[in-house]
Amino acid sequence: MVRKIILIAYNGVTALDLVGPMQVFSTATGYSKATTGVQRYDLVVASVDGGVVATSTGLQIVTQPLHEIGREQIDTIIVPGGRPNDNTVFDTRLVAWIAENGPSSRRVCSVCVGAFLLAEAGLLAGRSATTHWDFIETLKRKCAGATIVDGPIFVNDGNIWSSAGVSAGIDLALHLVEADHGRRLLAAPAIWARAVGVPDVGAAAVAVWMKAVPGAI
Amino acid sequence: MVRKIILIAYNGVTALDLVGPMQVFSTATGYSKATTGVQRYDLVVASVDGGVVATSTGLQIVTQPLHEIGREQIDTIIVPGGRPNDNTVFDTRLVAWIAENGPSSRRVCSVCVGAFLLAEAGLLAGRSATTHWDFIETLKRKCAGATIVDGPIFVNDGNIWSSAGVSAGIDLALHLVEADHGRRLLAAPAIWARAVGVPDVGAAAVAVWMKAVPGAI
Repeated sequence: MVRKIILIAYNGVTALDLVGPMQVFSTATGYSKATTGVQRYDLVVASVDGGVVATSTGLQIVTQPLHEIGREQIDTIIVPGGRPNDNTVFDTRLVAWIAENGPSSRRVCSVCVGAFLLAEAGLLAGRSATTHWDFIETLKRKCAGATIVDGPIFVNDGNIWSSAGVSAGIDLALHLVEADHGRRLLAAPAIWARAVGVPDVGAAAVAVWMKAVPGAI
Repeated sequence: MVRKIILIAYNGVTALDLVGPMQVFSTATGYSKATTGVQRYDLVVASVDGGVVATSTGLQIVTQPLHEIGREQIDTIIVPGGRPNDNTVFDTRLVAWIAENGPSSRRVCSVCVGAFLLAEAGLLAGRSATTHWDFIETLKRKCAGATIVDGPIFVNDGNIWSSAGVSAGIDLALHLVEADHGRRLLAAPAIWARAVGVPDVGAAAVAVWMKAVPGAI
């Protein structure tokens, strides 16, 4: 089964919020394809209008239009953050798309302050969630119906997965790869990227990692 | 002084090798601009022909043509990796550009297996350098005139900075921001991204970080 993962882009999106998780899923499916011939994930970067979107770094990325994606095809939606404040007004078409497609997706994930978009779409009502540490209080004000927690790298409640600051999106993606395919496939991106949990570097660190992950590559 | 940083792209480049360092420099200069009004870095993503380049993840990014960048404008060149092997043939025009512009740049940095491009351009001859742990032996074969070391997150020799696996490019970029502007500016991207050196999460971790970095924001 190839799982379709939608990574949502918009002008001002934090590039690393999007590319971090994308690299994890991409490396995992690339490793799977190279070793077993099986593709695990189909990654789609999409925005409301499609075309070129400018991230916060100035990096411009090419996106597909969200309306071209059939709801039934979606496995996971990844919502990266921008820099919201109490007065941020989100694109109502993007909020409507998330509100419409989120509930039927297996997983809706926010990275960093992407949680504000989930809140705006009504997906956090009655849920526990987290966001970047510096935006916890703002999100509490924005979303009184949710329980916003400060501390965990990521929080899962129902089909909602919210992660903390930027790099926590990488941690969350590693967790989701493990949940989908076990530690064997997880080890590929983790070792490639020397990600969280591999504090040292080089072959010695990999040996430690291997020991900690029975059955890893 | 605004330092121009050239991030080199090509088809098959590992997206996170490029976006990780870019996010660090971008967040640092954004923080500087917001707090002091001073822009510190000008980030340019460039490829041989310019236009849209497909990264290894499938993410397509928009690039400027390298030949439009005046050599005297360049402060730092960042060379991200792809997935080379013993038979990889690099774009000769890209190799020629790096060979021509590298020596006069203040810094030439490789991320992960981007070191192979520096080797091909002759910039590693007589130098110490590193690369992703799994490509150390291949790089030794490719570049007998260099001392390739396995272990450090990054290695500096002359104006050459080479970093280890993917995420080590983020560590290197944090180091370069600190070298350019001190720990105060470094703290901005490090805290935003909860990068290496901040193992815990949330406000408590930031407090630890603040304590470790006198004068941090």
